[in-house]
Amino acid sequence: MPWYFMCRRILFNIPHRTIRSRCFFITILLVTIIIVILLAYRLSNIPQECLLEHNSFRKQNDINHNSSLERPVIFIGGMPRSGTTLMRAILDSHPLVRCGEETRVIPRLLNMRAAWEKSTLEWNRCNYYPIVCFASSDDMSNSINRNIFTIYFTRLMAGGISKAMIDSAVRAFVYEILLHHNQYADVLCDKDPFVLKYAAYISSIFSNAKFLLLIRDARAVIHSVMTRKVTITGFNLLDYRQNFKVWNKGMETMMDQCTQVGKDKCLPVYYEQLVLQPKNVIENILKFLNLTWVDSVLHHEELIGKKISLSKTEHSSDQVIKPINLDALTRWIGHIPSDVKSEIDTLAPMLKRLGYDTQSDVPTYGTPDQLVLDNMNKLKENAEFWDSKAKFYARRAPNDTRIFQNDTKHQPIL
Amino acid sequence: MPWYFMCRRILFNIPHRTIRSRCFFITILLVTIIIVILLAYRLSNIPQECLLEHNSFRKQNDINHNSSLERPVIFIGGMPRSGTTLMRAILDSHPLVRCGEETRVIPRLLNMRAAWEKSTLEWNRCNYYPIVCFASSDDMSNSINRNIFTIYFTRLMAGGISKAMIDSAVRAFVYEILLHHNQYADVLCDKDPFVLKYAAYISSIFSNAKFLLLIRDARAVIHSVMTRKVTITGFNLLDYRQNFKVWNKGMETMMDQCTQVGKDKCLPVYYEQLVLQPKNVIENILKFLNLTWVDSVLHHEELIGKKISLSKTEHSSDQVIKPINLDALTRWIGHIPSDVKSEIDTLAPMLKRLGYDTQSDVPTYGTPDQLVLDNMNKLKENAEFWDSKAKFYARRAPNDTRIFQNDTKHQPIL
Repeated sequence: MPWYFMCRRILFNIPHRTIRSRCFFITILLVTIIIVILLAYRLSNIPQECLLEHNSFRKQNDINHNSSLERPVIFIGGMPRSGTTLMRAILDSHPLVRCGEETRVIPRLLNMRAAWEKSTLEWNRCNYYPIVCFASSDDMSNSINRNIFTIYFTRLMAGGISKAMIDSAVRAFVYEILLHHNQYADVLCDKDPFVLKYAAYISSIFSNAKFLLLIRDARAVIHSVMTRKVTITGFNLLDYRQNFKVWNKGMETMMDQCTQVGKDKCLPVYYEQLVLQPKNVIENILKFLNLTWVDSVLHHEELIGKKISLSKTEHSSDQVIKPINLDALTRWIGHIPSDVKSEIDTLAPMLKRLGYDTQSDVPTYGTPDQLVLDNMNKLKENAEFWDSKAKFYARRAPNDTRIFQNDTKHQPIL
Repeated sequence: MPWYFMCRRILFNIPHRTIRSRCFFITILLVTIIIVILLAYRLSNIPQECLLEHNSFRKQNDINHNSSLERPVIFIGGMPRSGTTLMRAILDSHPLVRCGEETRVIPRLLNMRAAWEKSTLEWNRCNYYPIVCFASSDDMSNSINRNIFTIYFTRLMAGGISKAMIDSAVRAFVYEILLHHNQYADVLCDKDPFVLKYAAYISSIFSNAKFLLLIRDARAVIHSVMTRKVTITGFNLLDYRQNFKVWNKGMETMMDQCTQVGKDKCLPVYYEQLVLQPKNVIENILKFLNLTWVDSVLHHEELIGKKISLSKTEHSSDQVIKPINLDALTRWIGHIPSDVKSEIDTLAPMLKRLGYDTQSDVPTYGTPDQLVLDNMNKLKENAEFWDSKAKFYARRAPNDTRIFQNDTKHQPIL
């Protein structure tokens, strides 16, 4: 082995040369080891998805799905005028959450999809009685929407568009909106009153979704709708009777959805309790959402215009700027027509079912916390200040929800 | 320096110990260097996005956007009954492309978004004349849709939902559908006749989108619609006059969109030329789409039921199963009411503008390729075979496009 001998000769040449070269070796060794450690650390920090060997497009997709499946999302809903805005303002005052204003496009898309699903059922039915379904299909007379949808969905299916495809498209749409709307929030949150109508579906596409269903005395809701002239599909600004029916139908749907997704995913929140005993109620809500308690949630008003942005076109903005108070609790008393009052249990059976006292004209909702009483005093003392603030946030555009009516003739919002 | 002396003593201890330990050092050094190289290689293989220090969710999003922006997408559109299905069947027979059946949900969503955009314009207008816009906003009477949308968009904006947000959500939705509908295709493709109405918008969210606008003699289109009882929003199965107007309006919009996106992004394809001189026309189309020529595109019929899947609910399925032929070219001749014929240039000025001979009762579209003549003979010879095949693909459900009417009262498809 000539190499060996040569090497040997070099090695035994001069002592301090040996030392130099050896120390030289040791340094190189140390350096390289450090590099290894750094690289290894770098690699360990890269999300797993990135290391998977997929078709890049399928991969990106999967990432997107996974993320939308993994990230916690809160959906706040309920009938309009039931405290959904107060609820979201309270959550907005938690450092980890951002709900923001109503997106309005999310319920719109869910509506559209629901129409498609409705047709799925039809479609299944139609496998048994096709004649019934396609009878009036060829004539140009206004055939029943059910029919049209049957036809429509038949074609969706035949067109190779599966339920799964629509689901992932809807998920992508909703997720995009939430992500951009609630940028940088750890917990995504959407407050659109009517999303609760689709709780079951939403939790089927967002496995980490949790729902807060705001519940409020129908008499207060309807009085508020009618005095504040909030135009909502189905509601009539002049007809108490009809409004109670509409409220009842809506609450039934939402409660039903809430029960479907289960106690661990959907929490009913009573507006009256929220404003009377905020501490306990909010504590309970945060526990339900796996969020740690922070005192700021009891003083959302302090963050208005800072972390909490309000829409000047939402009706409640000029109300939630104030600290939690009881102003809106009993304002309805004495304004419900007596004939409606007497029939209330038949018009809106849900009211009683939800535990509201439908017999008394002046129901008691419970005793307020000291905090709330203090807030009430503060509001009285600085009335002017709060009124001017309210004026600033008063809506600029009317709150017209009929927009939904346009693309949902076949299945009204409520 | 005691360490130095100790070290020194060790170093000068025994020659071959030196050798051993030195060789030992060298091996370790080599090993570590190899590890470094491997790790470095691994890192170099990881997509850049993965190495960026983003919020992981924002990051995943960006990836998704980029992909949807980079991947080539073909959109095939035009008026119904203008050969859009033939066109997509031809492209489907190219190994790199898959269009598949009509998705129907994509134009639906684009419709919805267009309504929102329409309201943007209103919204801008309303910054100048707010009174005009919000006049009838509070009363419950059916206020004009324009008004409702103004209000709606006002609220979208106030709700922190920007145009950019909606765009990325729409992009995500469309991309999800295309990706799952055309799985594993290198070039994504969507054939939904009415997408061409939104060409400008689509190319604003899909920078790599290319459009094929199918154009066909209105007389043939309308005769086909009326004899095949294809119910399309705006069309009337009994009124030639109205249908010409509707066709004209539709074509105007689509041509206008096609011009807007430009020659390099939108190619008008004349149905008559496509079936008369398929080779030249398809060559031209593939060049426009940057796709290499393959002979299979001249024989799409051979791939029906294999690579090409047809919807049993689309009207054209039982036509495109046949090789390219001239059956549908002149079938309309002699069926247009004389009074309509005489007014045709005023009813549908687009027809003349597109270069069709509106004077002659028997216009000549050009001379057919030998290939096409051969196809015609084949069809005659094996009439039975083709008829039975056609029967198999004949539609099961009526082709009712009124579905769109439901959510677009405010802006009809045509």
